Amino acid sequence: MLPIDDSPIVRDGKSLILAMDHGLEHGPVDFEEVPEKLDPAAVFETATHDAVTSIAVQKGIAEGYYPSYEDDVNLLVKLNGTSNMWMGEPDSAINCSVEYAADIGADAVGFTVYSGSNHEVEMFEEFREVHEKAREYDLPVVMWSYPRGQGLKNDTKPGTISYATRIALELGADIAKVKYPGEPEAMAHACEAAGNMNVVMSGGSKTDDREFLSTVEQATSAGCCGLAVGRNVWQREEPTRILDALERVIYDGKSADAALGHDDTESEPERDIERETETADATVEG
Amino acid sequence: MLPIDDSPIVRDGKSLILAMDHGLEHGPVDFEEVPEKLDPAAVFETATHDAVTSIAVQKGIAEGYYPSYEDDVNLLVKLNGTSNMWMGEPDSAINCSVEYAADIGADAVGFTVYSGSNHEVEMFEEFREVHEKAREYDLPVVMWSYPRGQGLKNDTKPGTISYATRIALELGADIAKVKYPGEPEAMAHACEAAGNMNVVMSGGSKTDDREFLSTVEQATSAGCCGLAVGRNVWQREEPTRILDALERVIYDGKSADAALGHDDTESEPERDIERETETADATVEG
Amino acid sequence: MLPIDDSPIVRDGKSLILAMDHGLEHGPVDFEEVPEKLDPAAVFETATHDAVTSIAVQKGIAEGYYPSYEDDVNLLVKLNGTSNMWMGEPDSAINCSVEYAADIGADAVGFTVYSGSNHEVEMFEEFREVHEKAREYDLPVVMWSYPRGQGLKNDTKPGTISYATRIALELGADIAKVKYPGEPEAMAHACEAAGNMNVVMSGGSKTDDREFLSTVEQATSAGCCGLAVGRNVWQREEPTRILDALERVIYDGKSADAALGHDDTESEPERDIERETETADATVEG
Amino acid sequence: MLPIDDSPIVRDGKSLILAMDHGLEHGPVDFEEVPEKLDPAAVFETATHDAVTSIAVQKGIAEGYYPSYEDDVNLLVKLNGTSNMWMGEPDSAINCSVEYAADIGADAVGFTVYSGSNHEVEMFEEFREVHEKAREYDLPVVMWSYPRGQGLKNDTKPGTISYATRIALELGADIAKVKYPGEPEAMAHACEAAGNMNVVMSGGSKTDDREFLSTVEQATSAGCCGLAVGRNVWQREEPTRILDALERVIYDGKSADAALGHDDTESEPERDIERETETADATVEG
Amino acid sequence: MLPIDDSPIVRDGKSLILAMDHGLEHGPVDFEEVPEKLDPAAVFETATHDAVTSIAVQKGIAEGYYPSYEDDVNLLVKLNGTSNMWMGEPDSAINCSVEYAADIGADAVGFTVYSGSNHEVEMFEEFREVHEKAREYDLPVVMWSYPRGQGLKNDTKPGTISYATRIALELGADIAKVKYPGEPEAMAHACEAAGNMNVVMSGGSKTDDREFLSTVEQATSAGCCGLAVGRNVWQREEPTRILDALERVIYDGKSADAALGHDDTESEPERDIERETETADATVEG
Repeated sequence: MLPIDDSPIVRDGKSLILAMDHGLEHGPVDFEEVPEKLDPAAVFETATHDAVTSIAVQKGIAEGYYPSYEDDVNLLVKLNGTSNMWMGEPDSAINCSVEYAADIGADAVGFTVYSGSNHEVEMFEEFREVHEKAREYDLPVVMWSYPRGQGLKNDTKPGTISYATRIALELGADIAKVKYPGEPEAMAHACEAAGNMNVVMSGGSKTDDREFLSTVEQATSAGCCGLAVGRNVWQREEPTRILDALERVIYDGKSADAALGHDDTESEPERDIERETETADATVEG
Repeated sequence: MLPIDDSPIVRDGKSLILAMDHGLEHGPVDFEEVPEKLDPAAVFETATHDAVTSIAVQKGIAEGYYPSYEDDVNLLVKLNGTSNMWMGEPDSAINCSVEYAADIGADAVGFTVYSGSNHEVEMFEEFREVHEKAREYDLPVVMWSYPRGQGLKNDTKPGTISYATRIALELGADIAKVKYPGEPEAMAHACEAAGNMNVVMSGGSKTDDREFLSTVEQATSAGCCGLAVGRNVWQREEPTRILDALERVIYDGKSADAALGHDDTESEPERDIERETETADATVEG
Repeated sequence: MLPIDDSPIVRDGKSLILAMDHGLEHGPVDFEEVPEKLDPAAVFETATHDAVTSIAVQKGIAEGYYPSYEDDVNLLVKLNGTSNMWMGEPDSAINCSVEYAADIGADAVGFTVYSGSNHEVEMFEEFREVHEKAREYDLPVVMWSYPRGQGLKNDTKPGTISYATRIALELGADIAKVKYPGEPEAMAHACEAAGNMNVVMSGGSKTDDREFLSTVEQATSAGCCGLAVGRNVWQREEPTRILDALERVIYDGKSADAALGHDDTESEPERDIERETETADATVEG
Repeated sequence: MLPIDDSPIVRDGKSLILAMDHGLEHGPVDFEEVPEKLDPAAVFETATHDAVTSIAVQKGIAEGYYPSYEDDVNLLVKLNGTSNMWMGEPDSAINCSVEYAADIGADAVGFTVYSGSNHEVEMFEEFREVHEKAREYDLPVVMWSYPRGQGLKNDTKPGTISYATRIALELGADIAKVKYPGEPEAMAHACEAAGNMNVVMSGGSKTDDREFLSTVEQATSAGCCGLAVGRNVWQREEPTRILDALERVIYDGKSADAALGHDDTESEPERDIERETETADATVEG
Repeated sequence: MLPIDDSPIVRDGKSLILAMDHGLEHGPVDFEEVPEKLDPAAVFETATHDAVTSIAVQKGIAEGYYPSYEDDVNLLVKLNGTSNMWMGEPDSAINCSVEYAADIGADAVGFTVYSGSNHEVEMFEEFREVHEKAREYDLPVVMWSYPRGQGLKNDTKPGTISYATRIALELGADIAKVKYPGEPEAMAHACEAAGNMNVVMSGGSKTDDREFLSTVEQATSAGCCGLAVGRNVWQREEPTRILDALERVIYDGKSADAALGHDDTESEPERDIERETETADATVEG
């Protein structure tokens, strides 16, 4: 870990990473309900929101779409990834070199490490090479720190998440991206285990506005410096609204309730920006 | 993916790749009914047809025969391949380096990726190296994107083909070559999943003219920018005729029926250029 | 082995290495009773004690915290390590290159070798590369020489520890870090097997003051040039006191009893610096 | 494949490679009946015969003996090989680099590929590196193309041998060395599958003169450009005589019968140069 | 193999290699009865005997002790080795690079090859790299040629030892070190299989003087150019005496009996230099 507060992917010590590598990791099925988001340009548009400090995509998406957005978004190139079509101990393929990421304009790089996998030794060593090369290019390194493998049954229990942030610190990551361990106390412990390295929470699968924002609020209160989020933003019909709310929680320190209400009348009753029903839109500004 | 419309292997945004690596992948058995095509020169002759934007062959064929055709064909060197004599999880050997392909005059390179195989991680990483080296040489990269392996039962179902085109996009391919998923809607979805990257349909094993051209028509209507075809061209006795018809479908946007009839009388009844019977030739121009 | 008495990590021919890679090797659980030590700065503070000749940490901790302590501590970068979340034959991932360790100011490097593991051949070869590169940078190499694996049942029996020191000598280590084999005679034999290479004893898990210091006294009397210790120092509430005592044993050649008593009245009855009870502190200076 | 008719290992478009790597592949047992041939100098002497266009040996033999024969023989360094002491899927160790072969004076290099083996992918990739490096040194590459492995039961059936020559062509070999498939028609098909690449027949284990020469006659009539032979030459007591006869078959296009008779009286009855009986020598010139 | 008679490790065409890598290969247990030999300096002292043409040690021993003996001994750095703590197919770790061996003053390098092991292919390839690099540094290469592995039951039967010397010749070794095959005729065959490459016999485990010297006499009479010996020298209380006797057998061509008697009265009755009893010393000069 090096000081990264001056990095473009950090704003006021906070980060909101908009992740969109689901087409590789999960396949087009993740876009079924929002087929227009299969067009990466649509997600890049969303990433131009002020709250977003970087967009995290794979190499191919970066080289195809970032040139049109380089003035408006910061690019975090995810260096490894795999499909979910094969089975076996967790592993991830290095799809992009640090040099190439730098060539195409990356402001930072991301790398998944599955600690606990039978491939842990190999992945740690790959991370070393990425980390040391990234230092040459002055690119911050975000570790997707996801303990996973035959020795692990529940990969979001508190001890596991604290181990995940600590591994990221020990191996030299600048930011650790971890799953929310369920309780604020566990998140706080994980942030302490990270020393003074930044920790961001993973957004996970799509939930409703209030549940999602409450978790974000708990995480940031517990010490997280922000969020790396994908589906909970771009799977929504109006991603701008949830980004507005996230901006209030992450950068302005507002509560989830306040963020969901009017900006200047925080006493307004909470309302979900987006609901299951089609009437959601009508009520948001209510 | 980078813009490749100016590449010699693309004509008016379309591509017709004549593939002839069957001697390696399947063995001489694929030439049993057309033994004269065992001579690679015969297939290079066919590739001089205007409809063909490139010929895809392995290194040895390229270095032995391309020098005599370099003014008349564009060369796509297929960089990996294996025999079908061994069994096990799908994999493919890198038989040619990008540097060597460039040395012998390649206009583009091709690479097979078996996503879903237990070798997926390794193949993705090999693709990375090929892709980044190809960028140095300004050579477009065509991914033979073929999900295959123990976790996959039916590798032409719609979800699989859409995943295949998406993986090609995410990893940086310039063109994805995929199997036809059976239905135009599925092909259209696969093309959408590819963003603005070009997709070409694989020709597959030899079928009759009408069935073959109808599938090509469906694929191009669904968004494919063309075809990569081998057996359906050079296993025919008169490959020029089917290439004439393919030219009409792919570049002129004609229907299979129209392409099979006289050029300027599209209302002519459809007729197969080549049939099982020896009388086929006599009826073609009829 | 090369002469290293002039190295900053050796003082008067002796070494006391304060090791803190437990966050990686064991996870945050090792800090449960001393949560404030999750902050690496706290352990670096401890390492400023005169008795400590170097602090051994992983790359990430080194780059994050060493810059604030570079005038006060000597840095030993541990180059490999793994989590304890996976199971299988002992192995360790190279998390830091020698070059990078040198870049961030290392005075020495450390490397674990699990002789007897099915990965022995690979680890020996990794050690070769580390060793030869370290010679280029003039960095002493400390081998954590820990026989372990399916062929070994009791990894602290005398023959095993003597084999461990000998392997370190044969492969070129400058200092071997080994477990205490239980008996002074066995330790002496292990030191003889090491020729004139330095041997330090591993501190192991936390025990009470007297037991711990007695073992250190036995080890140094048997020929060890010192100690590599972690939990037995920083898991204590007052690490300075045990370091004071260790200084007396290691550098001044005092007995454990004398080290635990007043400095100048060695006939004082022995007293533990730290006990299970809260009254421990009061009795120390008694 | 590149044009190699100007290569020193080809004479009038034909090749006779005298192979002597049996000491490695089979062990000294192959020399039991001709113990004086354990001395590589004896085989180098034989290779000075005009009919021999190159001698194929491993690196150690080449560096030890070729310097004394460099004016009289052409050197083909066999780059890989293994003992027959281990069991498992066919594989072969690269015992010599192309660079080293060039350093010690090689006129060509040889490489075994066991297509069909579980190591096929690895061997193809090794061949690629050898091939591309050999191109830099302008050294022709001879592929010992031997399909073998768990998926193959009879490695001399026609389809297999045709596949073998085709693989050599596709991967870029200049000459393919294959086993005789039993029938002239099958050999002819294998030569057609090789396009215009040269094919040489393997000599195989020792047979009597007439059987051996008849097979050579059939192979060359079917399109082979010659022979790679070991035991059928140097296991004979008078290798010069069989080489005289081979010269007549391969370069002069004579029949086996004619080659076995007087040079200028082809109507002479056939006689074996060497028989099982000790009287053989006496009858040869009869 | 290259001519090495001018090498410092050969004297009058003969070699006596004093090997001391047992601390790594067998562990300190080999020194149990001669604990003072755990000090490598003691064995280096022995190596200053005129009969010894080189001392064979691992890297760590070489860098620690050779500097004090560089004027008096020739250094053969053994490049690979492993402990005997693990089980599995024979393999050996490369513990020292050729470059490093050259840096620390090696006059030659040694490398173990376990032909017949499932790791044979890998070891042959490692040997290739060592061999070619050693050629750059003009360092002779001694192959410890030890067929061993699941396919081999008795690794000292005649055919195996002849195969062992032949493999060393074929792969380019300058000297082969092999076990004695039991009979002089078998040793002679093994020397013939080696062409004109030097062969030295392994000393093996300690036996009594007469038995040991008789075997050496048989081996040298059969064509061996000398001996590589460890335990049979340094496990003796008076290694100088056995070295005196070995000098007579190897360099002066004397019989074991003569070597054991007075130098100038070869008709003296044979006497063992060292016996089990303490009276041995008294009788030697008798």
